[in-house]
Amino acid sequence: MKNILLIGAGRSASTLIKYLSDNSQKENWKVTVGDISEDIAKQKIKNHPNSHAIVFDVNNEDQRVGEISKADLVISMLPATMHLSVAQECLKQKKHLVTASYVSKQMKELDTEAKKAGVIFLNEIGLDPGIDHLSAMKVIDDVKAKGGKMITFKSYCGGLVAPESNDNPWGYKFTWNPRAVVIAGQSGDATGATAQYLQNGKIKYIPYTRLFSNTENISVEKYGKFEAYANRDSLSYMELYGLHDVKNMLRGTLRIPGFCRAWNAFIQLGITDDNCNVSNSENITYVSLIESFLPESKGGSVKKKLAKFLHEKENSPVMKKLDWLGIFKNQKIGLHDSSPAEILLDLLMKKWSLKPDDKDMVVMQHEFEYKLTPNLSLRGDGRRGEVKRITSSMVVIGDNQINTAMSKTVGLPLGISTKLILNEKIKLKGVCIPTVKEIYNPVLSELENFSIRFIEKHH
Amino acid sequence: MKNILLIGAGRSASTLIKYLSDNSQKENWKVTVGDISEDIAKQKIKNHPNSHAIVFDVNNEDQRVGEISKADLVISMLPATMHLSVAQECLKQKKHLVTASYVSKQMKELDTEAKKAGVIFLNEIGLDPGIDHLSAMKVIDDVKAKGGKMITFKSYCGGLVAPESNDNPWGYKFTWNPRAVVIAGQSGDATGATAQYLQNGKIKYIPYTRLFSNTENISVEKYGKFEAYANRDSLSYMELYGLHDVKNMLRGTLRIPGFCRAWNAFIQLGITDDNCNVSNSENITYVSLIESFLPESKGGSVKKKLAKFLHEKENSPVMKKLDWLGIFKNQKIGLHDSSPAEILLDLLMKKWSLKPDDKDMVVMQHEFEYKLTPNLSLRGDGRRGEVKRITSSMVVIGDNQINTAMSKTVGLPLGISTKLILNEKIKLKGVCIPTVKEIYNPVLSELENFSIRFIEKHH
Repeated sequence: MKNILLIGAGRSASTLIKYLSDNSQKENWKVTVGDISEDIAKQKIKNHPNSHAIVFDVNNEDQRVGEISKADLVISMLPATMHLSVAQECLKQKKHLVTASYVSKQMKELDTEAKKAGVIFLNEIGLDPGIDHLSAMKVIDDVKAKGGKMITFKSYCGGLVAPESNDNPWGYKFTWNPRAVVIAGQSGDATGATAQYLQNGKIKYIPYTRLFSNTENISVEKYGKFEAYANRDSLSYMELYGLHDVKNMLRGTLRIPGFCRAWNAFIQLGITDDNCNVSNSENITYVSLIESFLPESKGGSVKKKLAKFLHEKENSPVMKKLDWLGIFKNQKIGLHDSSPAEILLDLLMKKWSLKPDDKDMVVMQHEFEYKLTPNLSLRGDGRRGEVKRITSSMVVIGDNQINTAMSKTVGLPLGISTKLILNEKIKLKGVCIPTVKEIYNPVLSELENFSIRFIEKHH
Repeated sequence: MKNILLIGAGRSASTLIKYLSDNSQKENWKVTVGDISEDIAKQKIKNHPNSHAIVFDVNNEDQRVGEISKADLVISMLPATMHLSVAQECLKQKKHLVTASYVSKQMKELDTEAKKAGVIFLNEIGLDPGIDHLSAMKVIDDVKAKGGKMITFKSYCGGLVAPESNDNPWGYKFTWNPRAVVIAGQSGDATGATAQYLQNGKIKYIPYTRLFSNTENISVEKYGKFEAYANRDSLSYMELYGLHDVKNMLRGTLRIPGFCRAWNAFIQLGITDDNCNVSNSENITYVSLIESFLPESKGGSVKKKLAKFLHEKENSPVMKKLDWLGIFKNQKIGLHDSSPAEILLDLLMKKWSLKPDDKDMVVMQHEFEYKLTPNLSLRGDGRRGEVKRITSSMVVIGDNQINTAMSKTVGLPLGISTKLILNEKIKLKGVCIPTVKEIYNPVLSELENFSIRFIEKHH
């Protein structure tokens, strides 16, 4: 009998908890689901006989020590900043730890000790980070194995609304952390203020103010066109994926075409700022807020002035998107002491919310360019091996509002790797991320049972 | 015999220390100058018989308690975040405290206790904040006294280089905190990311990305034209100065005309960001850094591409300023692990440094519009009292690189108010700022002895 302690039972844990419960009989697991809210934990385990729900407060040391002592493996779904006390206790008690979060500096420092203790601290095994590592490294290793030299790696991921539920002009609804969407690309955002990537062998820096006007278009088979803005940190993946000699290296976030140009209107206005308070935000109206952010100009409605400021026609797609949000309405904001970003977030949460029957969608696509080792018997620049292309793409649609695409793609890699660790199929120790065959092969393989699969196209 | 403890003997304390020494005989003062560097403290007191220098570490509690116990009044020139432990000790020991820093929330909370203890904690009595309060409130109170109703208050201040030392195309050299100049207007800056002011009765918000293209031009008698960008927080001064009904309220920072348009080039590029690291910053060159921040475009030199990006002609004043800095040179940056802002700062400190004989200049100008109470016997909109205008301006030129204009305008109000407190000419208690007659009248009056005077023009 193995004991699994799962800490944090929020939205993204639903499918993971189901996976753990579903496998508990066959695998002989006892699953303890702890959350700061006992109700949420209880609701998620659905009276499953092998699972039980507890109130868990990570700041309660006695409880932390006690619950971890009963477990063979701990899954932490807490916010990334809260993993450390759990990790330190896992180290003391020699318990495995699995998270979907980026490896922090402090987590990294536990590597030697974790190896000594004979345990694995497996991180970045959700969706992004997670499935991106698994699927990218599989192709990268395949290409290397056949003597290919990678030239280009571009990787895109987006949490979107499914086509059948896409019924607003933005082509977007919140399926994930709404605040992160509003402050995406800012310095207050964990991913920082300046995007960095490699283009034609040269580093490119894109500041926040140009991030959403500097997009790429991609095409995903069966699902059509998307646009992507650059994530902050693409360069560090060269080291991570062993791609030291590539000429193009980009990671981006996907949106439906047209989204970024409209979102850029908010950035150019300055209304995504979360660091200042709007005077009298409770009583002013949306339209007066927009006017306050517009440069002084004479005549016309606020809508007309905004169109002029943005160099848009008044009935352009961008202006239609903005209008649909109600920002030109004479309606009170009604939020006390709020920043522009908070006001925007509040409005968007009303307009971009999923309806009860809406489904979400996760799209991930990697694009590779490589050359096979040149045939040494041939000479001349023109014959140095042809550039080959691979695209590898995954589209997952949510089942419903519980087992969303997001919850499936975050939770299943966590659940599957937990099983592989407990069954000693993954024998690695220390602080790891899933960029190695020992992890990505079996996890990708089992993900296919849940219709989470990558389609590779070789061009 | 009165004992004065001055903590922090940095650049801006020079004139203050001279003032305290010069007055010590007549006023019967003993002056203790403490600094983390004993050398700096010693150098500043110049063996004056009534002054002595000590090493002072504000984090050393014993020393803090001991030195404050010997003083009648403490002047803290420490960074604003370090005042609190000094203020708390002053409270315990019932000692007066004088600073040139903005009143923090924590400082404000000491008001009741300071009053109870019978001491004054006088803050914001340097240049800006300081002389701005003194001089603005004098005019505001005068206008109110003659029944005027203020319509417009605009206040500008700049630390610049004196005209005779202005020998570079930017018309600017560092005379104050260089880092603050590079990150001015950003959210990392203490003054925040979005400027707020009142224009024609409406609040205007200006985000960082438009701050330096949204400038005002002003004219200062004998010194000609300046341009100003908006400080973050103009609205809070309506409360502070009792100007609840004004239609225009703006505080701005002065530069030589043309500066802001050129500085805006760096902001549009994104090169003022202090939150990301430039890859391999030690070995790359300035020109390659600029290229990395430019959008991809074909053909031509980096200079040509930048001109195109900025919609400038290649020989425009903006491009000449940029060129003069050497940013198009194939020269190694030579700075390890640095942010773009740090690289820019390092370069600017070489180019914008004062030469040994250079003098600095402080310019402050307030602009007021008001109406006298309308003559009730007249009717009709057109006759509601004429708009009157006042400008009140001060220009101070530094004597040399020790008694700079900055050091004089920051230090003398501190010194003079210290004297007024010890002589009980200022009898106020509690946490104060110098917006009241009891303070501004005698301080402004003595400042004139040092040629620091405002010229009022009534139009």
